[in-house]
Amino acid sequence: MKGNLIIRNVLLEGRPCDIYIKEGIISRIGSSVGSKDGDRVFDGRGMTVLPAFVNMHTHAGMTLFRGICEDMPLKAWLDAVWKAETALDDDLVYWGTRLACLEMIRTGTVAFNDMYWRISKAAQAVEDSGMRAHLTYCFLDGGDADRQRRQREECAAEYEASGSWSDRVRFGVSIHAHYTVSDGNMLWAAGFARDRGLLIHTHISETLTENEAHLARYGVSPTRRLADMGLLGKDVIAAHTLWLDDGDVHLLGESGTTVVHNINSNLKLASGYRFRYNELRDAGANVTMGTDGAGSSNNLDLREALKTAALVQKAWRGDPASLPLDELMAMGTVNGAKALGLHSGVVEEGASADLILVDTGSSFFVPSHNFKANFIYSANSSCIDTVICDGRVIMEGGRVEGQEEVLARAREEAARFLKKINA
Amino acid sequence: MKGNLIIRNVLLEGRPCDIYIKEGIISRIGSSVGSKDGDRVFDGRGMTVLPAFVNMHTHAGMTLFRGICEDMPLKAWLDAVWKAETALDDDLVYWGTRLACLEMIRTGTVAFNDMYWRISKAAQAVEDSGMRAHLTYCFLDGGDADRQRRQREECAAEYEASGSWSDRVRFGVSIHAHYTVSDGNMLWAAGFARDRGLLIHTHISETLTENEAHLARYGVSPTRRLADMGLLGKDVIAAHTLWLDDGDVHLLGESGTTVVHNINSNLKLASGYRFRYNELRDAGANVTMGTDGAGSSNNLDLREALKTAALVQKAWRGDPASLPLDELMAMGTVNGAKALGLHSGVVEEGASADLILVDTGSSFFVPSHNFKANFIYSANSSCIDTVICDGRVIMEGGRVEGQEEVLARAREEAARFLKKINA
Repeated sequence: MKGNLIIRNVLLEGRPCDIYIKEGIISRIGSSVGSKDGDRVFDGRGMTVLPAFVNMHTHAGMTLFRGICEDMPLKAWLDAVWKAETALDDDLVYWGTRLACLEMIRTGTVAFNDMYWRISKAAQAVEDSGMRAHLTYCFLDGGDADRQRRQREECAAEYEASGSWSDRVRFGVSIHAHYTVSDGNMLWAAGFARDRGLLIHTHISETLTENEAHLARYGVSPTRRLADMGLLGKDVIAAHTLWLDDGDVHLLGESGTTVVHNINSNLKLASGYRFRYNELRDAGANVTMGTDGAGSSNNLDLREALKTAALVQKAWRGDPASLPLDELMAMGTVNGAKALGLHSGVVEEGASADLILVDTGSSFFVPSHNFKANFIYSANSSCIDTVICDGRVIMEGGRVEGQEEVLARAREEAARFLKKINA
Repeated sequence: MKGNLIIRNVLLEGRPCDIYIKEGIISRIGSSVGSKDGDRVFDGRGMTVLPAFVNMHTHAGMTLFRGICEDMPLKAWLDAVWKAETALDDDLVYWGTRLACLEMIRTGTVAFNDMYWRISKAAQAVEDSGMRAHLTYCFLDGGDADRQRRQREECAAEYEASGSWSDRVRFGVSIHAHYTVSDGNMLWAAGFARDRGLLIHTHISETLTENEAHLARYGVSPTRRLADMGLLGKDVIAAHTLWLDDGDVHLLGESGTTVVHNINSNLKLASGYRFRYNELRDAGANVTMGTDGAGSSNNLDLREALKTAALVQKAWRGDPASLPLDELMAMGTVNGAKALGLHSGVVEEGASADLILVDTGSSFFVPSHNFKANFIYSANSSCIDTVICDGRVIMEGGRVEGQEEVLARAREEAARFLKKINA
């Protein structure tokens, strides 16, 4: 059973209030909200409440790869990572995902959209961490017919098994990318997802090289070809979308596709940075934010990613007023929630109680002229004191229950992994 | 008297060691270093020692302006700030600078190069905070003859008064910028500095607009004209240097000028981002890092600025191998120390004990494949546990002595300031 919770005297948009949370839902926001026997009362004095973040593109299990390949271009990096991934096993995915969940919780994220391997182990890790996730079975066949068949069977079996997951964890389908999955499998995967009302997760136009190769082979952009194949839409989440022409922007917007900006990863791998935020927003795409995997970015700190996104957007457009704070916060919260079918990313009655409490006691919040500017541009994520997911407090005073075990086991698994790939 | 200190069992470049600090200097690094009666012994277990950061371009007192003007271009921002600055008084500068010092200490910086007003009050704030600073008297006359005369007299008087400062705080001269100070005053200020062995601090080519106006008026770039006037050299610290042609790079390099990259400020104000790191380094310039004032950037967190600098450099050059971690760390430490005439920015016997201890207990340091990558790319600055300046521990366990008073007084002063400028 989900506990009832009252947060007293917390600041919401600058005004003190009480928030009553019943069975995971914000049931009342007001002053002097009464409590019943058995309710947990939480003192929010000195803190500001915000919706928790939704990280829309991750490879959570890869957190164990952090720092293995530094300063490499995407192609070399992918080769190194794909070689390392042949050594993956259940324990590596479980503890890698637990580590990722711990880091996301510590930095204010309660829900994420993932693309990785062995998703039943990842699901167990998400359940154990108390977060929400959309975990996708990942198609990646490189044109190999055997692998195509095996992946279809495996996807169907994993989907069956996902019936036992709680309602915090949802099953979805990934088409890794248009250049790593055969056309037949792309269509099969999309059909499988759509027959079952599942979401589709993919990479589009992360690098210029990938785009140019596509153009040379097919004579059209990746987005155009995916549109022609019926692979855009409100049920599609496309990561990166960095190298888009006006036609691509129009197609993504018209179809209501969700796009995910992953600025830190794009910068670090030198994939690009001219993400067309204004144009995508105006065309009608649902623009959201991700960190990508910690193997590339190198963390899962969405608040930090939002800061970088705003700064770089202002700079490359030559316009300091672009990507203002309210739109930035929506990218990091409600837009992602909408894509995942969650009623969260907002602090309002009837919404899921997915919340963070921000401690404004450090120098970064002095003076207090502009809270959102202080939170995004000045502070670091250690100001996030308390995290609530589905009405449950999963971090309090910067501490997550069981964090020592997660860190210790992740350290052990990382060492074992390194031995395994070097063996 | 400076205390003697032993840090035991701290990791230095991955190996445990003891560090003996005598009268502010690292006198021995080894294993099982003996202690004498009265020495303070500090347990460094679980921590990694690094040189503390040197922030090479700040306007510390402006920290009270944080969040006042968001999303404005540089020209409008400067107009708003210059209007606000007419309301400055001694208490505002003192508590603004204390707030800045607190934030720098919390994020691992122990020395900074500042350009602001009422430097005797700033000096008192730096002394009280236990940090080091190079504080510069700032020439800015807009061609007004009266103001020129008054500033020369004031500079001379402030210089005299600086005789009472401790050896942690040094007096210098700022020429605000080539477009805000008359030629006569620029030459007078440089002469004043050079006659006394003082350093010169200035802004060069922060915006394209400023550069184009200069070119239209003088037919040459700002750097070229400053070189012709004898205003480059090893004693000159030039902030921004963002819009440089090959000739400018050559002049800055040949003269051994120190340049300061302020990426977060440059991005946020949309001034530019194509800082020519490789070319400046190869030409022989001393390349350092700054945060700029918290009014623009919006914090004084040099570690965060280093991360952004590396990421953006990789992206705009299209080369993920550019600005590698060792060069990045040097930009943030030893290069700045060198410019300021400090023997610090390194952890070695004979150097000043300006050190930070990094707590690697959080998820950001798991796995531990690459400590520097984890420190810069993965962690946030809350991992900095202990800060030592001139052999004295000025932060321990993330706590700075007297921080509550600084925060409370800075909040009061910010409120008073807002009333004053709105009166």
